[in-house]
Amino acid sequence: MDHPLSSTVKVLAFDVFGTVVDWHGSIVREMAQRHPQVDGDAFARAWRAGYRPAMARVMNGELGWTRIDELHRMILDEILPQFGLGGLGEAQRQEINRVWHRLAPWPDSLEGVTRLKRRFTVCTLSNGNLGLLTNMAKRSGLPWDCVLSAEVFRAYKPDPAAYLGVAKVFDLAPQEVMLVAAHHDDLAAARGCGLRTAYVERRTEFGPAHPKDVSPQPGNDLHCTSIVHVAETLGC
Amino acid sequence: MDHPLSSTVKVLAFDVFGTVVDWHGSIVREMAQRHPQVDGDAFARAWRAGYRPAMARVMNGELGWTRIDELHRMILDEILPQFGLGGLGEAQRQEINRVWHRLAPWPDSLEGVTRLKRRFTVCTLSNGNLGLLTNMAKRSGLPWDCVLSAEVFRAYKPDPAAYLGVAKVFDLAPQEVMLVAAHHDDLAAARGCGLRTAYVERRTEFGPAHPKDVSPQPGNDLHCTSIVHVAETLGC
Repeated sequence: MDHPLSSTVKVLAFDVFGTVVDWHGSIVREMAQRHPQVDGDAFARAWRAGYRPAMARVMNGELGWTRIDELHRMILDEILPQFGLGGLGEAQRQEINRVWHRLAPWPDSLEGVTRLKRRFTVCTLSNGNLGLLTNMAKRSGLPWDCVLSAEVFRAYKPDPAAYLGVAKVFDLAPQEVMLVAAHHDDLAAARGCGLRTAYVERRTEFGPAHPKDVSPQPGNDLHCTSIVHVAETLGC
Repeated sequence: MDHPLSSTVKVLAFDVFGTVVDWHGSIVREMAQRHPQVDGDAFARAWRAGYRPAMARVMNGELGWTRIDELHRMILDEILPQFGLGGLGEAQRQEINRVWHRLAPWPDSLEGVTRLKRRFTVCTLSNGNLGLLTNMAKRSGLPWDCVLSAEVFRAYKPDPAAYLGVAKVFDLAPQEVMLVAAHHDDLAAARGCGLRTAYVERRTEFGPAHPKDVSPQPGNDLHCTSIVHVAETLGC
Protein backbone atom coordinates (compact mmCIF):
# COMPACT_ATOMS: atom_id res chain seq x y z
CA MET A 1 0.00 0.00 0.00
CA ASP A 2 1.23 3.47 -0.79
CA HIS A 3 2.51 5.73 1.92
CA PRO A 4 0.34 8.86 2.12
CA LEU A 5 3.39 11.03 1.39
CA SER A 6 3.91 9.35 -2.00
CA SER A 7 1.18 11.43 -3.56
CA THR A 8 2.17 14.82 -2.14
CA VAL A 9 5.97 14.66 -2.36
CA LYS A 10 7.35 15.31 -5.86
CA VAL A 11 11.07 15.83 -5.29
CA LEU A 12 13.48 13.95 -3.05
CA ALA A 13 16.56 16.03 -2.26
CA PHE A 14 19.47 14.03 -0.85
CA ASP A 15 22.16 15.11 1.48
CA VAL A 16 25.27 13.41 0.08
CA PHE A 17 28.32 13.28 2.41
CA GLY A 18 27.52 10.54 4.92
CA THR A 19 24.00 9.94 3.64
CA VAL A 20 24.61 8.67 0.09
CA VAL A 21 28.39 8.15 0.18
CA ASP A 22 30.79 6.88 2.83
CA TRP A 23 33.33 9.69 3.23
CA HIS A 24 35.10 8.06 6.20
CA GLY A 25 35.60 4.65 4.62
CA SER A 26 36.61 6.13 1.26
CA ILE A 27 39.27 8.38 2.78
CA VAL A 28 40.59 5.58 5.01
CA ARG A 29 40.95 3.29 1.97
CA GLU A 30 42.77 5.90 -0.12
CA MET A 31 45.12 6.83 2.70
CA ALA A 32 45.93 3.15 3.33
CA GLN A 33 47.10 2.96 -0.30
CA ARG A 34 48.90 6.28 -0.56
CA HIS A 35 50.26 6.83 2.94
CA PRO A 36 49.92 3.58 4.92
CA GLN A 37 51.90 5.02 7.83
CA VAL A 38 49.10 7.51 8.57
CA ASP A 39 46.19 6.75 10.92
CA GLY A 40 43.51 6.98 8.23
CA ASP A 41 40.65 6.97 10.71
CA ALA A 42 42.05 9.93 12.65
CA PHE A 43 42.99 11.70 9.42
CA ALA A 44 39.49 11.36 7.92
CA ARG A 45 37.84 12.60 11.10
CA ALA A 46 40.24 15.54 11.45
CA TRP A 47 39.57 16.59 7.87
CA ARG A 48 35.81 16.34 8.29
CA ALA A 49 35.96 18.18 11.64
CA GLY A 50 37.21 21.29 9.86
CA TYR A 51 34.21 21.33 7.54
CA ARG A 52 31.58 23.12 9.58
CA PRO A 53 33.91 25.82 10.95
CA ALA A 54 35.09 26.52 7.38
CA MET A 55 31.53 26.90 6.06
CA ALA A 56 30.71 29.09 9.05
CA ARG A 57 33.50 31.46 7.99
CA VAL A 58 31.83 31.78 4.59
CA MET A 59 28.33 32.25 5.94
CA ASN A 60 29.37 34.87 8.53
CA GLY A 61 31.09 36.88 5.82
CA GLU A 62 34.68 36.37 6.99
CA LEU A 63 35.34 34.65 3.65
CA GLY A 64 33.64 35.51 0.38
CA TRP A 65 31.80 32.72 -1.41
CA THR A 66 34.14 29.74 -1.38
CA ARG A 67 33.42 26.29 -2.78
CA ILE A 68 33.85 23.13 -0.73
CA ASP A 69 36.79 22.06 -2.91
CA GLU A 70 38.67 25.15 -1.72
CA LEU A 71 37.50 24.75 1.88
CA HIS A 72 38.61 21.11 1.87
CA ARG A 73 41.99 22.22 0.61
CA MET A 74 42.40 24.87 3.31
CA ILE A 75 41.62 22.28 5.98
CA LEU A 76 43.91 19.72 4.33
CA ASP A 77 46.82 22.14 4.36
CA GLU A 78 46.20 22.73 8.07
CA ILE A 79 46.10 19.07 9.09
CA LEU A 80 48.83 17.57 6.88
CA PRO A 81 51.68 18.56 9.24
CA GLN A 82 49.84 16.96 12.17
CA PHE A 83 50.02 13.64 10.30
CA GLY A 84 53.64 13.96 9.25
CA LEU A 85 52.70 14.95 5.69
CA GLY A 86 53.70 18.61 5.78
CA GLY A 87 56.26 17.96 3.05
CA LEU A 88 53.75 16.97 0.36
CA GLY A 89 53.96 19.02 -2.83
CA GLU A 90 51.22 20.83 -4.70
CA ALA A 91 50.33 18.01 -7.10
CA GLN A 92 50.03 15.48 -4.28
CA ARG A 93 47.87 17.85 -2.24
CA GLN A 94 45.56 18.40 -5.21
CA GLU A 95 45.31 14.67 -5.77
CA ILE A 96 44.44 13.93 -2.13
CA ASN A 97 41.95 16.80 -2.07
CA ARG A 98 40.07 15.24 -4.99
CA VAL A 99 39.28 12.18 -2.87
CA TRP A 100 36.00 13.95 -2.11
CA HIS A 101 35.11 13.57 -5.81
CA ARG A 102 35.76 9.83 -5.52
CA LEU A 103 33.75 8.92 -2.42
CA ALA A 104 32.03 5.55 -2.72
CA PRO A 105 28.28 5.12 -2.22
CA TRP A 106 26.96 3.05 0.68
CA PRO A 107 25.97 -0.44 -0.54
CA ASP A 108 22.24 0.43 -0.73
CA SER A 109 22.55 3.89 -2.31
CA LEU A 110 22.51 3.04 -6.03
CA GLU A 111 19.57 0.67 -5.76
CA GLY A 112 17.68 3.03 -3.46
CA VAL A 113 18.12 6.16 -5.58
CA THR A 114 17.41 4.25 -8.80
CA ARG A 115 14.14 2.86 -7.41
CA LEU A 116 13.06 6.25 -6.06
CA LYS A 117 13.85 7.88 -9.41
CA ARG A 118 11.05 5.87 -11.04
CA ARG A 119 8.46 7.80 -9.09
CA PHE A 120 10.10 10.99 -7.88
CA THR A 121 12.52 13.59 -9.15
CA VAL A 122 15.76 12.77 -7.33
CA CYS A 123 18.37 15.45 -6.81
CA THR A 124 21.25 16.25 -4.52
CA LEU A 125 21.09 19.04 -1.98
CA SER A 126 24.64 19.04 -0.75
CA ASN A 127 27.14 21.59 0.44
CA GLY A 128 29.53 19.93 -2.02
CA ASN A 129 30.15 21.91 -5.20
CA LEU A 130 28.60 21.04 -8.55
CA GLY A 131 31.77 19.67 -10.13
CA LEU A 132 32.50 17.47 -7.12
CA LEU A 133 28.97 16.07 -7.04
CA THR A 134 28.89 15.48 -10.80
CA ASN A 135 32.26 13.72 -10.86
CA MET A 136 31.21 11.57 -7.90
CA ALA A 137 27.90 10.61 -9.52
CA LYS A 138 29.47 9.83 -12.88
CA ARG A 139 32.12 7.66 -11.30
CA SER A 140 29.73 5.67 -9.13
CA GLY A 141 26.63 5.62 -11.34
CA LEU A 142 24.34 7.65 -9.12
CA PRO A 143 21.48 8.56 -11.50
CA TRP A 144 20.47 12.04 -10.28
CA ASP A 145 17.84 13.86 -12.30
CA CYS A 146 19.54 17.09 -11.30
CA VAL A 147 22.62 18.02 -9.30
CA LEU A 148 21.78 20.84 -6.89
CA SER A 149 24.26 22.31 -4.48
CA ALA A 150 24.90 25.14 -2.09
CA GLU A 151 26.91 26.50 -5.03
CA VAL A 152 23.66 27.15 -6.95
CA PHE A 153 22.04 28.99 -4.06
CA ARG A 154 25.23 30.60 -2.72
CA ALA A 155 24.16 29.43 0.72
CA TYR A 156 25.41 26.53 2.78
CA LYS A 157 22.97 24.34 4.66
CA PRO A 158 21.48 24.89 7.20
CA ASP A 159 20.75 28.30 5.62
CA PRO A 160 17.03 28.34 4.67
CA ALA A 161 17.94 29.62 1.18
CA ALA A 162 19.32 26.19 0.34
CA TYR A 163 16.19 24.22 1.31
CA LEU A 164 13.73 26.75 -0.10
CA GLY A 165 15.89 27.01 -3.21
CA VAL A 166 15.04 23.42 -4.17
CA ALA A 167 11.31 24.13 -3.93
CA LYS A 168 11.73 27.28 -6.04
CA VAL A 169 13.74 25.49 -8.73
CA PHE A 170 10.84 23.09 -9.23
CA ASP A 171 8.02 25.58 -8.60
CA LEU A 172 6.80 23.51 -5.68
CA ALA A 173 5.53 24.23 -2.21
CA PRO A 174 8.09 23.30 0.48
CA GLN A 175 5.95 20.36 1.63
CA GLU A 176 6.24 18.83 -1.85
CA VAL A 177 9.98 18.43 -1.30
CA MET A 178 11.48 15.83 1.06
CA LEU A 179 15.04 16.00 2.35
CA VAL A 180 16.72 12.62 2.83
CA ALA A 181 19.64 12.88 5.23
CA ALA A 182 21.59 11.06 7.93
CA HIS A 183 21.87 14.18 10.09
CA HIS A 184 19.17 15.37 12.45
CA ASP A 185 20.31 19.01 12.38
CA ASP A 186 20.07 19.13 8.58
CA LEU A 187 16.60 17.60 8.74
CA ALA A 188 15.49 19.97 11.49
CA ALA A 189 16.50 22.98 9.41
CA ALA A 190 14.64 21.57 6.40
CA ARG A 191 11.57 20.97 8.56
CA GLY A 192 11.77 24.56 9.76
CA CYS A 193 11.37 25.60 6.10
CA GLY A 194 8.33 23.37 5.63
CA LEU A 195 10.02 20.45 3.84
CA ARG A 196 9.23 16.81 4.56
CA THR A 197 12.07 14.82 6.07
CA ALA A 198 13.43 11.26 5.97
CA TYR A 199 16.20 10.20 8.33
CA VAL A 200 18.58 7.47 7.19
CA GLU A 201 20.63 5.54 9.75
CA ARG A 202 24.36 5.58 8.97
CA ARG A 203 25.73 4.15 12.18
CA THR A 204 29.31 3.93 10.89
CA GLU A 205 29.48 7.35 9.21
CA PHE A 206 32.46 8.27 11.43
CA GLY A 207 33.99 4.81 11.14
CA PRO A 208 33.22 1.47 12.80
CA ALA A 209 35.26 2.50 15.85
CA HIS A 210 33.01 5.51 16.47
CA PRO A 211 29.39 4.37 16.09
CA LYS A 212 26.86 7.18 15.84
CA ASP A 213 23.63 7.37 17.81
CA VAL A 214 21.00 6.68 15.15
CA SER A 215 17.98 6.48 17.41
CA PRO A 216 14.81 8.14 16.11
CA GLN A 217 14.13 11.74 16.96
CA PRO A 218 10.69 13.27 16.87
CA GLY A 219 9.57 15.35 13.93
CA ASN A 220 10.85 13.38 10.95
CA ASP A 221 8.25 11.96 8.59
CA LEU A 222 10.31 8.83 8.00
CA HIS A 223 13.02 6.98 9.92
CA CYS A 224 14.75 4.44 7.72
CA THR A 225 17.70 2.07 7.95
CA SER A 226 18.82 2.65 4.36
CA ILE A 227 17.87 4.41 1.12
CA VAL A 228 16.37 1.14 -0.10
CA HIS A 229 14.20 1.28 3.01
CA VAL A 230 13.10 4.81 2.00
CA ALA A 231 12.18 3.40 -1.42
CA GLU A 232 10.23 0.50 0.09
CA THR A 233 8.41 2.83 2.46
CA LEU A 234 7.38 5.13 -0.37
CA GLY A 235 6.18 2.23 -2.51
CA CYS A 236 9.04 2.21 -5.04
CA MET B 1 40.72 6.44 -35.25
CA ASP B 2 40.23 8.97 -32.51
CA HIS B 3 39.67 12.59 -33.29
CA PRO B 4 42.50 14.70 -31.79
CA LEU B 5 39.94 16.62 -29.70
CA SER B 6 38.83 13.45 -27.90
CA SER B 7 41.83 13.59 -25.61
CA THR B 8 41.71 17.30 -24.73
CA VAL B 9 37.97 17.88 -24.37
CA LYS B 10 36.52 16.65 -21.05
CA VAL B 11 33.06 18.21 -20.94
CA LEU B 12 30.46 18.56 -23.68
CA ALA B 13 27.98 21.32 -22.89
CA PHE B 14 24.80 21.21 -24.98
CA ASP B 15 22.58 24.01 -26.07
CA VAL B 16 19.09 22.55 -25.69
CA PHE B 17 16.26 24.47 -27.45
CA GLY B 18 16.61 23.61 -31.13
CA THR B 19 19.82 21.62 -30.69
CA VAL B 20 18.68 18.71 -28.51
CA VAL B 21 14.91 19.19 -28.61
CA ASP B 22 12.48 20.26 -31.32
CA TRP B 23 10.64 23.25 -29.84
CA HIS B 24 8.78 24.09 -33.06
CA GLY B 25 7.43 20.62 -33.74
CA SER B 26 6.53 20.03 -30.07
CA ILE B 27 4.56 23.27 -29.80
CA VAL B 28 2.82 22.67 -33.14
CA ARG B 29 1.74 19.18 -31.99
CA GLU B 30 0.41 20.40 -28.64
CA MET B 31 -1.47 23.29 -30.22
CA ALA B 32 -3.02 20.95 -32.80
CA GLN B 33 -4.46 18.94 -29.91
CA ARG B 34 -5.51 21.80 -27.63
CA HIS B 35 -6.45 24.56 -30.05
CA PRO B 36 -6.71 23.10 -33.56
CA GLN B 37 -8.12 26.35 -34.95
CA VAL B 38 -4.78 28.12 -34.28
CA ASP B 39 -1.94 28.24 -36.85
CA GLY B 40 0.52 26.27 -34.73
CA ASP B 41 3.48 27.07 -36.95
CA ALA B 42 2.92 30.84 -36.69
CA PHE B 43 2.16 30.52 -32.98
CA ALA B 44 5.37 28.63 -32.23
CA ARG B 45 7.48 31.10 -34.19
CA ALA B 46 5.82 34.14 -32.61
CA TRP B 47 6.45 32.73 -29.13
CA ARG B 48 10.07 31.96 -29.89
CA ALA B 49 10.59 35.38 -31.52
CA GLY B 50 9.92 37.06 -28.18
CA TYR B 51 12.67 35.07 -26.49
CA ARG B 52 15.77 37.09 -27.31
CA PRO B 53 14.20 40.50 -26.66
CA ALA B 54 12.96 39.23 -23.29
CA MET B 55 16.40 37.99 -22.25
CA ALA B 56 17.91 41.26 -23.45
CA ARG B 57 15.62 43.12 -21.02
CA VAL B 58 17.07 41.02 -18.20
CA MET B 59 20.68 41.41 -19.26
CA ASN B 60 20.42 45.19 -19.78
CA GLY B 61 19.00 45.56 -16.28
CA GLU B 62 15.48 46.64 -17.27
CA LEU B 63 14.22 43.50 -15.52
CA GLY B 64 15.81 41.89 -12.47
CA TRP B 65 16.89 38.26 -12.79
CA THR B 66 13.94 36.45 -14.38
CA ARG B 67 13.79 32.78 -15.32
CA ILE B 68 12.82 31.59 -18.79
CA ASP B 69 9.57 30.13 -17.42
CA GLU B 70 8.51 33.65 -16.46
CA LEU B 71 9.82 35.19 -19.70
CA HIS B 72 7.94 32.55 -21.72
CA ARG B 73 4.79 33.43 -19.79
CA MET B 74 5.18 37.18 -20.43
CA ILE B 75 5.55 36.52 -24.16
CA LEU B 76 2.66 34.06 -24.14
CA ASP B 77 0.34 36.62 -22.54
CA GLU B 78 1.34 39.10 -25.25
CA ILE B 79 0.71 36.82 -28.21
CA LEU B 80 -2.42 34.94 -27.10
CA PRO B 81 -4.83 37.71 -28.22
CA GLN B 82 -3.18 37.76 -31.66
CA PHE B 83 -4.20 34.12 -32.06
CA GLY B 84 -7.73 34.54 -30.77
CA LEU B 85 -6.86 33.05 -27.38
CA GLY B 86 -7.04 36.19 -25.26
CA GLY B 87 -9.85 34.66 -23.24
CA LEU B 88 -7.83 31.77 -21.80
CA GLY B 89 -7.79 31.57 -18.01
CA GLU B 90 -4.86 31.30 -15.64
CA ALA B 91 -4.80 27.49 -15.41
CA GLN B 92 -4.86 27.09 -19.19
CA ARG B 93 -2.08 29.64 -19.62
CA GLN B 94 0.08 27.85 -17.07
CA GLU B 95 -0.54 24.54 -18.80
CA ILE B 96 0.40 25.90 -22.24
CA ASN B 97 3.47 27.64 -20.80
CA ARG B 98 4.73 24.30 -19.47
CA VAL B 99 4.99 22.95 -23.02
CA TRP B 100 8.62 24.07 -22.84
CA HIS B 101 9.11 21.43 -20.11
CA ARG B 102 7.69 18.80 -22.49
CA LEU B 103 9.67 19.46 -25.67
CA ALA B 104 10.57 16.26 -27.51
CA PRO B 105 14.17 15.38 -28.44
CA TRP B 106 15.19 15.16 -32.09
CA PRO B 107 15.30 11.48 -33.21
CA ASP B 108 19.10 11.25 -32.80
CA SER B 109 19.46 13.10 -29.48
CA LEU B 110 19.04 10.27 -26.98
CA GLU B 111 21.40 7.93 -28.78
CA GLY B 112 23.93 10.69 -29.41
CA VAL B 113 24.04 12.01 -25.84
CA THR B 114 24.07 8.49 -24.40
CA ARG B 115 27.05 7.49 -26.54
CA LEU B 116 28.95 10.69 -25.76
CA LYS B 117 28.29 10.19 -22.04
CA ARG B 118 30.46 7.05 -22.07
CA ARG B 119 33.55 9.13 -22.72
CA PHE B 120 32.74 12.72 -21.72
CA THR B 121 30.86 14.53 -19.02
CA VAL B 122 27.66 15.66 -20.74
CA CYS B 123 25.75 18.62 -19.41
CA THR B 124 23.30 21.22 -20.58
CA LEU B 125 24.24 24.85 -21.04
CA SER B 126 20.88 26.35 -21.78
CA ASN B 127 19.10 29.58 -21.10
CA GLY B 128 16.24 27.39 -19.90
CA ASN B 129 15.83 27.22 -16.13
CA LEU B 130 16.91 24.25 -14.01
CA GLY B 131 13.41 22.96 -13.31
CA LEU B 132 12.42 23.15 -16.97
CA LEU B 133 15.57 21.33 -18.11
CA THR B 134 15.23 18.67 -15.40
CA ASN B 135 11.56 17.99 -16.15
CA MET B 136 12.33 17.78 -19.87
CA ALA B 137 15.22 15.37 -19.35
CA LYS B 138 13.27 13.15 -16.97
CA ARG B 139 10.32 12.94 -19.34
CA SER B 140 12.39 12.13 -22.40
CA GLY B 141 15.22 10.11 -20.85
CA LEU B 142 18.07 12.51 -21.65
CA PRO B 143 20.88 11.21 -19.39
CA TRP B 144 22.71 14.43 -18.43
CA ASP B 145 25.52 14.09 -15.92
CA CYS B 146 24.66 17.57 -14.73
CA VAL B 147 22.00 20.14 -15.59
CA LEU B 148 23.62 23.56 -15.98
CA SER B 149 21.71 26.65 -16.89
CA ALA B 150 21.89 30.41 -17.15
CA GLU B 151 20.01 30.21 -13.83
CA VAL B 152 23.18 28.89 -12.13
CA PHE B 153 25.37 31.66 -13.51
CA ARG B 154 22.72 34.39 -13.43
CA ALA B 155 23.75 35.24 -16.98
CA TYR B 156 22.05 34.42 -20.25
CA LYS B 157 24.07 33.26 -23.21
CA PRO B 158 25.82 34.85 -25.07
CA ASP B 159 27.18 36.45 -21.86
CA PRO B 160 30.73 35.10 -21.32
CA ALA B 161 29.87 34.29 -17.69
CA ALA B 162 27.71 31.40 -18.90
CA TYR B 163 30.40 29.74 -21.06
CA LEU B 164 33.24 30.36 -18.63
CA GLY B 165 30.97 29.25 -15.80
CA VAL B 166 30.94 25.69 -17.15
CA ALA B 167 34.74 25.56 -17.20
CA LYS B 168 34.88 26.91 -13.64
CA VAL B 169 32.34 24.38 -12.35
CA PHE B 170 34.58 21.55 -13.53
CA ASP B 171 37.94 23.26 -12.80
CA LEU B 172 38.87 23.06 -16.46
CA ALA B 173 40.53 25.36 -18.95
CA PRO B 174 38.01 26.76 -21.50
CA GLN B 175 39.52 24.66 -24.30
CA GLU B 176 38.66 21.49 -22.34
CA VAL B 177 34.96 22.32 -22.75
CA MET B 178 33.11 21.97 -26.07
CA LEU B 179 29.77 23.65 -26.76
CA VAL B 180 27.43 21.65 -28.99
CA ALA B 181 24.81 23.89 -30.59
CA ALA B 182 22.70 24.45 -33.68
CA HIS B 183 23.27 28.22 -33.61
CA HIS B 184 26.34 29.92 -35.01
CA ASP B 185 26.03 32.99 -32.77
CA ASP B 186 26.02 30.83 -29.64
CA LEU B 187 29.08 28.96 -30.89
CA ALA B 188 30.88 32.17 -31.84
CA ALA B 189 30.39 33.55 -28.33
CA ALA B 190 31.68 30.28 -26.83
CA ARG B 191 34.70 30.39 -29.15
CA GLY B 192 35.37 33.94 -28.02
CA CYS B 193 35.73 32.55 -24.49
CA GLY B 194 38.16 29.85 -25.62
CA LEU B 195 35.75 26.90 -25.75
CA ARG B 196 35.77 24.30 -28.51
CA THR B 197 32.65 24.24 -30.67
CA ALA B 198 30.55 21.69 -32.57
CA TYR B 199 27.79 22.85 -34.90
CA VAL B 200 24.80 20.55 -35.38
CA GLU B 201 22.57 20.99 -38.42
CA ARG B 202 18.89 21.38 -37.52
CA ARG B 203 17.48 22.43 -40.85
CA THR B 204 13.84 22.30 -39.68
CA GLU B 205 14.31 24.04 -36.33
CA PHE B 206 11.77 26.71 -37.36
CA GLY B 207 9.50 24.18 -39.04
CA PRO B 208 9.62 22.35 -42.37
CA ALA B 209 8.09 25.39 -44.09
CA HIS B 210 10.98 27.60 -43.01
CA PRO B 211 14.24 25.70 -43.63
CA LYS B 212 17.30 27.17 -41.99
CA ASP B 213 20.63 27.76 -43.71
CA VAL B 214 22.84 25.11 -42.15
CA SER B 215 25.91 25.59 -44.31
CA PRO B 216 29.25 25.43 -42.51
CA GLN B 217 30.77 28.60 -41.14
CA PRO B 218 34.46 29.01 -40.44
CA GLY B 219 35.78 28.66 -36.92
CA ASN B 220 33.88 25.67 -35.56
CA ASP B 221 35.94 22.62 -34.65
CA LEU B 222 33.20 20.27 -35.85
CA HIS B 223 30.30 20.56 -38.28
CA CYS B 224 27.89 17.64 -37.86
CA THR B 225 24.53 16.57 -39.22
CA SER B 226 23.28 15.18 -35.88
CA ILE B 227 24.37 14.48 -32.31
CA VAL B 228 25.02 10.87 -33.33
CA HIS B 229 27.39 12.32 -35.92
CA VAL B 230 29.16 14.25 -33.13
CA ALA B 231 29.52 10.96 -31.24
CA GLU B 232 30.88 9.14 -34.29
CA THR B 233 33.32 11.94 -35.00
CA LEU B 234 34.63 11.87 -31.42
CA GLY B 235 35.00 8.09 -31.47
CA CYS B 236 32.03 7.23 -29.21
